[in-house]
Amino acid sequence: MALADIVSLERNEAGIQSVVGILKQRFGEQLQSSKSLREQHSHTTTYLPSQLPDAVVFPHSTSEVQEIVKTCAEFKVPIIPFGTGTSLEGGVNAPAGGISVDLQQMDKIIAVNSEDLDCVVQPGVTREALNEHLRDTGLFFPIDPGANASLGGMAATRASGTNAVRYGTMRENVVNITAVMPDGRIVKTANRAKKSAAGYDLTRLLVGAEGTLGIITELTVKLYGIPEAISAAICRFPSVEAACNTTILAIQSGIPMARIELLDAMQVRACNNYSNLDFEEVPTLFLEFHGSTAGVKEQTEMFGEIAADFGGSDFEWVTATEDRNRLWKARHNAAYAISTLRPGAQMIATDACVPISRLADCVVETQKDVEETGLIASIVGHVGDGNFHVTPLVDINDPKEVEAVEAFIDRLNKRAIDMDGTCTGEHGIGQGKRRYMQAEYGDGADLMVAIKKTIDPDNIMNPGKVVSFD
Amino acid sequence: MALADIVSLERNEAGIQSVVGILKQRFGEQLQSSKSLREQHSHTTTYLPSQLPDAVVFPHSTSEVQEIVKTCAEFKVPIIPFGTGTSLEGGVNAPAGGISVDLQQMDKIIAVNSEDLDCVVQPGVTREALNEHLRDTGLFFPIDPGANASLGGMAATRASGTNAVRYGTMRENVVNITAVMPDGRIVKTANRAKKSAAGYDLTRLLVGAEGTLGIITELTVKLYGIPEAISAAICRFPSVEAACNTTILAIQSGIPMARIELLDAMQVRACNNYSNLDFEEVPTLFLEFHGSTAGVKEQTEMFGEIAADFGGSDFEWVTATEDRNRLWKARHNAAYAISTLRPGAQMIATDACVPISRLADCVVETQKDVEETGLIASIVGHVGDGNFHVTPLVDINDPKEVEAVEAFIDRLNKRAIDMDGTCTGEHGIGQGKRRYMQAEYGDGADLMVAIKKTIDPDNIMNPGKVVSFD
Repeated sequence: MALADIVSLERNEAGIQSVVGILKQRFGEQLQSSKSLREQHSHTTTYLPSQLPDAVVFPHSTSEVQEIVKTCAEFKVPIIPFGTGTSLEGGVNAPAGGISVDLQQMDKIIAVNSEDLDCVVQPGVTREALNEHLRDTGLFFPIDPGANASLGGMAATRASGTNAVRYGTMRENVVNITAVMPDGRIVKTANRAKKSAAGYDLTRLLVGAEGTLGIITELTVKLYGIPEAISAAICRFPSVEAACNTTILAIQSGIPMARIELLDAMQVRACNNYSNLDFEEVPTLFLEFHGSTAGVKEQTEMFGEIAADFGGSDFEWVTATEDRNRLWKARHNAAYAISTLRPGAQMIATDACVPISRLADCVVETQKDVEETGLIASIVGHVGDGNFHVTPLVDINDPKEVEAVEAFIDRLNKRAIDMDGTCTGEHGIGQGKRRYMQAEYGDGADLMVAIKKTIDPDNIMNPGKVVSFD
Repeated sequence: MALADIVSLERNEAGIQSVVGILKQRFGEQLQSSKSLREQHSHTTTYLPSQLPDAVVFPHSTSEVQEIVKTCAEFKVPIIPFGTGTSLEGGVNAPAGGISVDLQQMDKIIAVNSEDLDCVVQPGVTREALNEHLRDTGLFFPIDPGANASLGGMAATRASGTNAVRYGTMRENVVNITAVMPDGRIVKTANRAKKSAAGYDLTRLLVGAEGTLGIITELTVKLYGIPEAISAAICRFPSVEAACNTTILAIQSGIPMARIELLDAMQVRACNNYSNLDFEEVPTLFLEFHGSTAGVKEQTEMFGEIAADFGGSDFEWVTATEDRNRLWKARHNAAYAISTLRPGAQMIATDACVPISRLADCVVETQKDVEETGLIASIVGHVGDGNFHVTPLVDINDPKEVEAVEAFIDRLNKRAIDMDGTCTGEHGIGQGKRRYMQAEYGDGADLMVAIKKTIDPDNIMNPGKVVSFD
């Protein structure tokens, strides 16, 4: 199948053998090369075929990562940074082989600076582990891409998720990064001041670079006070447009929505099946409000009035923590849920993002396209950000179907770009979406390649991803 | 005097003459070279000595800027982008001569997308002009560095100001940039989607680059709904520490402060003198709260309780719009006010920024240093961001005094960096602070130079600023 630009790049066989030998000598049991482990480190959750690394190494410190990078650099051998392997566009594949650097054992929380509302962590700390650690501080880390991803991986992929509408994405929530660069130098992109006007924004250059410019070995992220009151609700709408228009007006009115998620009718059906729920199968918004008790009350009243104007139902309240977790679990399991609609098929998770004013158009056109193409695919979206997911279920062994879904994804991405949007709001480029970079950025894509070539002239950092260097 | 790294760079005399001739031919009256105009385009508000450009050109469109850049690139002649000339660290000086590109006539508001809470503007639109244009929409652009700066200049310098604590800096508020790059290519860094995970963050690369990587010719910025209620107040404290600790706790408690500004006793005295006020001359916080009517009431009650715990006075309320404007005008005139304390002296406006937990330490140590050095200098700060300004008043003709203030600024910046902060929170690097880049970033500073050399190999874009290329 030809679902993406997953060319196999030329292998530097002699270099790889040398590096594996040297690193085995140096790292002993911290380096593994069993086939099953290497498979785990390439396939992960993507629909893309696996391309295995030659070995997996588990460093414990920035200086160990530096040693690994210097060795790989000397022999021009690829390095593939690995967090928890939950990327969706082939981010951890090894198209030219090389060394997977698994950062999961770098899982120390170095400092919680509660006065500064930030904390310093190693890249392997997962968001759930961090929030568990923060439990007694009254603080939390909000960014939630669904998976229990590592903070290093989330920074590298500019992750976001359901509450980015309120708290921003990793772009806004990473304060600084320490990274080992392709030449082995250690760069710290900033100190911990909340803002700086000193020079180029190296932090934002590494956030979203998907490990193609360096490996993140430490980072500082922002924290927030746990809101006094949290309440969640669902609200049903007669149409996708009505749900989108409600969202637009709510945000325009300054309601600080914490979460506002659109599920189309098919997705509600899938969630009902999978999570044993009995929601009415119509376009539905899942909502969450954060604030003071009085503030949340005010927000929900304002939202309720707007929703009513667009034909929205009364709220179905979900206030107990347990029920709220159940609701969001159902939302987070949307992808698994949709699989139940066509057992045995491969789910292809793709996303796009447009200005919120174009969201209804983009979703409705995409639904029509789904229907005309004869696909089974639901739509679920971080509607406050104009970001939505489409998950076609495909018989991967039917070349005609693969071709049809490929053309569908092409149309989806071009539609989003034509509506002043982007081919990916949060999944990243990886291998799967490199083909759209030129359409989205024009000469800007060439500028990215020039930056890559300056920082990584031998193309050893996660080659074959994001930019078309090769 | 040697207050900064304002080396004169080698002039490409023949190239400059050729370019001025060609551009005069092409642009006629849009190009001017009178000495007074050239002086206006270099000195501006900085304490640094002027270095004049050879001509000033006033383009009207991206394609005119492209023509100018291509001509300059051909002859390797410097280009100095110019907004309103309110930069403080020599950002518009021309150390190797060249062409000042004044963008003030590119002042069209191209689109206001109220559903998306953004607008597309040419770079010469000032923040006041934009807010005037938005008057009837219920929306506003919050970032307010004090001066009525241009949005292009504000993006280029990563400007912020009094309400960055609530709305962020230009880093968070620029959605995309169209820029003419040093080779004449036009790059658009992003579309208008609220978020994107597609490739390197070119927007953030240009925000804060101070025109050293390209000239901004169009940009999209975020807008916000005008809050239902705004109220301002002042609150007096027994010490700088008490004011800082109140700020920390208020922010930790999640009070969404819109403005929280610290004035030390000397600054209050200066404001009293200059703006004809009669505030008690003790450390004082100027505050502003935005929200719904009930929300603002709740915020101010919470803040009042915290302030009382640290010995803060009752609020002195400033609710009428006129009085509020008077308050913030006094704050914005702080720099002029301080000048009255030593008539005839040169004011040197410098800033630094530290994690908020270190702010009291940093301010108190700096006050002590001011005293020991025998300077007249007040401190005023965006205390919610850990950012503060120090403005020594110096007899520029006394070499010993100049040396003393230079050593003081050195100590200030190193103190901030040592406290995990930055040598500038919002003034930028320009020429004045290049010497601190290595101390702040180490190998990161070299990485910035490498990026500059890739994008602008002939060093024609605002040479002598930010990075030490030359």
